[in-house]
Amino acid sequence: MTTQQLYEQIQQKKSFLCVGLDPDLNKMPSHLLQTEDPIFEFNKAIIDATHDVCVAYKPNTAFFEAYGIKGWLSLQKTIQYINEKHPEIFTIADAKRGDIGNTSSMYAKAFFEDLEFDSVTVAPYMGKDSVEPFLAFENKHTIMLGLTSNEGAFDFQTKMLGDKELYKQVLETSKSWKNSHNLMYVVGATKAEYFTEIRKIVTDSFLLVPGIGAQGGSLSEVCKYGMNSQIGLLVNSARAIIYASKETDFAEKARAEALKVQQEMAEIMQK
Amino acid sequence: MTTQQLYEQIQQKKSFLCVGLDPDLNKMPSHLLQTEDPIFEFNKAIIDATHDVCVAYKPNTAFFEAYGIKGWLSLQKTIQYINEKHPEIFTIADAKRGDIGNTSSMYAKAFFEDLEFDSVTVAPYMGKDSVEPFLAFENKHTIMLGLTSNEGAFDFQTKMLGDKELYKQVLETSKSWKNSHNLMYVVGATKAEYFTEIRKIVTDSFLLVPGIGAQGGSLSEVCKYGMNSQIGLLVNSARAIIYASKETDFAEKARAEALKVQQEMAEIMQK
Repeated sequence: MTTQQLYEQIQQKKSFLCVGLDPDLNKMPSHLLQTEDPIFEFNKAIIDATHDVCVAYKPNTAFFEAYGIKGWLSLQKTIQYINEKHPEIFTIADAKRGDIGNTSSMYAKAFFEDLEFDSVTVAPYMGKDSVEPFLAFENKHTIMLGLTSNEGAFDFQTKMLGDKELYKQVLETSKSWKNSHNLMYVVGATKAEYFTEIRKIVTDSFLLVPGIGAQGGSLSEVCKYGMNSQIGLLVNSARAIIYASKETDFAEKARAEALKVQQEMAEIMQK
Repeated sequence: MTTQQLYEQIQQKKSFLCVGLDPDLNKMPSHLLQTEDPIFEFNKAIIDATHDVCVAYKPNTAFFEAYGIKGWLSLQKTIQYINEKHPEIFTIADAKRGDIGNTSSMYAKAFFEDLEFDSVTVAPYMGKDSVEPFLAFENKHTIMLGLTSNEGAFDFQTKMLGDKELYKQVLETSKSWKNSHNLMYVVGATKAEYFTEIRKIVTDSFLLVPGIGAQGGSLSEVCKYGMNSQIGLLVNSARAIIYASKETDFAEKARAEALKVQQEMAEIMQK
């Protein structure tokens, strides 16, 4: 998918919501646990209930890998379901991968070719040659960690590396990498005031923004400082939507929560 | 496995060699491609041929994930084979994971509980709360990226973060994390002269050292600067051993290469 197609979807749906799929057997409704593949059934129900109010789904690979082969099968079924039923939706493998060149190539193959995701999240610590193998895929997107939404972001990311904070150095440096037009960045919503500075560095890029909802970030603040002329934001919410209810009405409640966010987004887009 | 048990194995075998399992269908002997599970058959042959001269195996998860479900199955069979046949051997899931706390917990569950690896590699960018969930597992080991062996290491890792290089800051800071005694570190062999400084910070920790062999690092240099009183090194070699031959004698040739490294290690340990 191209970023232009993503932008068109955002305009159509008046939404830049990304629904995070973090399926946890301990948190999902008990009636699903009797099915053959509870994780897929859960995701399917969430997708069926929310696909018209969101523009992206972000399965978090950890929540699948934790269940071994069965989990990986559920991941495969989930991405196939999205790609078949809702090919207009942007898919993100939240995998935080990154390794030396030949290894990153294998990860890129895993997520872009085998699983057919539109994008994958990667970590920047190993630098240019750990990220460029992902960037080599045209019309696939590499979403690199910039400033994350957790406490640990202050351990290294916000410390000064030379003349600027590490996360700014990461953003700045990555712009010189080959096929950097395929880059997007993770920027946590819990630090909305940072977006002004970030937009000075990566003006046109899409930012994937976790931290709305369960982690406490504010949507209007993020939009105020982070939006660009093509919206340029994918705001992720996982737990607040997918675990809105643990009863048989979980999909309905998930939709209600997603709709609430979408409506707020539509209002912001109208301004 | 405890580090004491690992040390005892090193003394017995006079080896601190870790064999990297990076199974690539394009590089393995063609006669294996007709088998039902070429990746597992390849690994099994390598393990059968080298288990008495090495102390650790390091499957690189990318090389399994690239083949989807089949690959993940091969990974599961490989780790099960090692754990059943050679329970004394230290196993490393080279996965470079790391995410916010509840996600890292799921990754830890995947590698420590579901797959029963002794250790997993993690990335430090997201800081303390992205690593501590791994450290919570007693007698499991978390091998964090310090200074990697690739060119991209110079993009951020060797840049000054405050008063010291980022990688040193990472090592230093991690010592204050809960259960930091379960930490080991990745330090690339291609930069042997850095080991002196690194040992000042993490004197007692085991270091996992990639970059010997195909990547060009020198074993004797690494040992000269990096060894501690309990050896403290796991030196990884993958391609130079497992792809020593692409013919039916590949396992034999792999053993010969591994033996060469082991003998050099035995000599170094005698000094």
